[in-house]
Amino acid sequence: MFSRRIGSLRPSPIREILSVLDRPDMVSFAGGLPAPEMLPPLSLSAAPTSLQYGPSEGDPELRAVVSEQLRILGLDAPTERVMILSGSQQGIDLVAKLFVDPGTPVAVESPTYLAALQVFRLYGADFTSLNWNNAPMAPLAYVVPTFANPTGRCATDDERDSLARACQDGGVTLFEDDPYRELAYGPCDRKPVAARMHGGSWVYQGSFSKTFAPGLRLGFLAASEDLFPSLVILKQAVDLHSSTLSQQLVRSAITDPSWSNRLDELASFYRKRRDGFDAALHRHLDGLAEWETPAGGLFFWLRLTRPVDTRALLAAAIDRGVAFMPGEEFFPDRPQLGTMRLNFSHADADATERGLRTLAQLLRDGTEKHEGVSNT
Amino acid sequence: MFSRRIGSLRPSPIREILSVLDRPDMVSFAGGLPAPEMLPPLSLSAAPTSLQYGPSEGDPELRAVVSEQLRILGLDAPTERVMILSGSQQGIDLVAKLFVDPGTPVAVESPTYLAALQVFRLYGADFTSLNWNNAPMAPLAYVVPTFANPTGRCATDDERDSLARACQDGGVTLFEDDPYRELAYGPCDRKPVAARMHGGSWVYQGSFSKTFAPGLRLGFLAASEDLFPSLVILKQAVDLHSSTLSQQLVRSAITDPSWSNRLDELASFYRKRRDGFDAALHRHLDGLAEWETPAGGLFFWLRLTRPVDTRALLAAAIDRGVAFMPGEEFFPDRPQLGTMRLNFSHADADATERGLRTLAQLLRDGTEKHEGVSNT
Repeated sequence: MFSRRIGSLRPSPIREILSVLDRPDMVSFAGGLPAPEMLPPLSLSAAPTSLQYGPSEGDPELRAVVSEQLRILGLDAPTERVMILSGSQQGIDLVAKLFVDPGTPVAVESPTYLAALQVFRLYGADFTSLNWNNAPMAPLAYVVPTFANPTGRCATDDERDSLARACQDGGVTLFEDDPYRELAYGPCDRKPVAARMHGGSWVYQGSFSKTFAPGLRLGFLAASEDLFPSLVILKQAVDLHSSTLSQQLVRSAITDPSWSNRLDELASFYRKRRDGFDAALHRHLDGLAEWETPAGGLFFWLRLTRPVDTRALLAAAIDRGVAFMPGEEFFPDRPQLGTMRLNFSHADADATERGLRTLAQLLRDGTEKHEGVSNT
Repeated sequence: MFSRRIGSLRPSPIREILSVLDRPDMVSFAGGLPAPEMLPPLSLSAAPTSLQYGPSEGDPELRAVVSEQLRILGLDAPTERVMILSGSQQGIDLVAKLFVDPGTPVAVESPTYLAALQVFRLYGADFTSLNWNNAPMAPLAYVVPTFANPTGRCATDDERDSLARACQDGGVTLFEDDPYRELAYGPCDRKPVAARMHGGSWVYQGSFSKTFAPGLRLGFLAASEDLFPSLVILKQAVDLHSSTLSQQLVRSAITDPSWSNRLDELASFYRKRRDGFDAALHRHLDGLAEWETPAGGLFFWLRLTRPVDTRALLAAAIDRGVAFMPGEEFFPDRPQLGTMRLNFSHADADATERGLRTLAQLLRDGTEKHEGVSNT
């Protein structure tokens, strides 16, 4: 009865988890949620023109501002090849729609952003693994080079150059997803891979969810000439255009003289959160897990010293008021057990302390139970 | 290089036309744009919580209000089976994604909403024609029973009952698109087809674009139990959720005590526009075209007395400052030449007069030229 693609459909753990986050006692390390105190105040009288239908590509002035920011990053992205998205999740759907038939190979990092895997799967992609130093064996390569989700890793300058060259020489379309680039807490080469290509096919996308507000659902993409016109037509077919009101709000925020201050404050606020979280991790999880301190983004990626399936752990954790994201979900094929992604931006210091203490207790209980079992 | 579906991709004439509508001198009968003077004023201080990520299904309170409205229409649509959409165009994409593989038959009226045809085509649909009194020969039937786009036609009570029975008995999923139902200018049976089914599979969707503001990109759907969960997962994959701010604005508008007054005023305003447009049509196009006066919605559907291809006429019209929608675009297969859709909601009386005079002149010129040619 349903289309064949529905066979690959399964509920996203993100969505399932978001549905319990309303519980007032819940400590959530699960989503990539901004800190409530860093959401902007809004006060607005929209001119009526901002409520009419608008162009599919987006508000011309907002596109121009984004284009200028991308030019500074080194991208060949004139205004006419910038499109405003209803969140960067939409960009993944559009690019998948443009490229992926059942059986089309798509090169991805392992692990990588689970909602991207979900969309590519829905269109029937066969995943191949993306290695930074070899040419991707696929017509399309999806990558989050800067503060990767879930690992927080920032690709090196050499790796970026190498991937750019490989895509260009191999006729591979680069799809670069860059939602976290402004959330940098230490030095890291961040020049986009797409900015290192000279010719070739590429899509570069970013988000206003992390720097401004996720609820407005606004992101953007830029693409090479061969791809952009088709992406606009696909965008028009899915929602005609993005909210004119959201676009107006974001435009006035990012053109305000205070915008660069806001970005600095955000980075500084989240740097402190990261450091506090890191310290709390050491207090509670030393010996139970290993991790690197991420140079940016919103996540710690934990490798447990015992390879338990953290999907099974999640239900028990939620019962005890803590949510996290099982690492298994981020692998395109065979999941690596004993991994978890912890968001550090949303919970405050007290909640973090409480949540990590609970997680540590659960992990210890699991270990004891396991040892108990193996001794009988 | 691209996926197979991209072979069916062509620019939408809506989009192409929207791109010239900014010209200040342009009279547009093309889009389904609300009158600027009927767009609501906005003044807002959003609580910060409305800017955070939200559930894919939408704001719980807004869903509850929509559910109650649908219950009054006779639909079996409890809150947990109502989902908020980023415009009802998104609903078409989700339903097509759920059902349509290359070669899947989809029953549609002829003519019907062109952007729906575009989406179904993109997923590879084979169109079959929907007749109100016979069972659709397809697993999915898409229909706009109330003030159809483009014809403005309102299906009769008998036709609605008959289609409901046919879908139910034949195991056909009914996809009912109902964006215009509040814009009723005369008596017309409007009880949804989906409300006449008892069991069976159905999706019913509506829009806040016509009653509130299109720029917010907000609509909703309700669906039978067998379909709803998959639609939510598909929604989550395309944009996580719809703008929380748009949802908050729409919720406060439609729960305001003045909402039913607003709907009355809208209907009364557009009824006058329709009547004025009708009179202007008679002044300028009598003898050149035939039409019925629509009982609701936003469009007149014209059949020219000479079957010229109005796609060819459009460029000349735009040169002379008038935009309309060629009727040919609304046919799933062989287009009926000499048809056009004229929107009457957007242009004021002066612009309407000027625009219709210009169109009439173009049609007369075309006739003379044609007769000139056929005489040589």
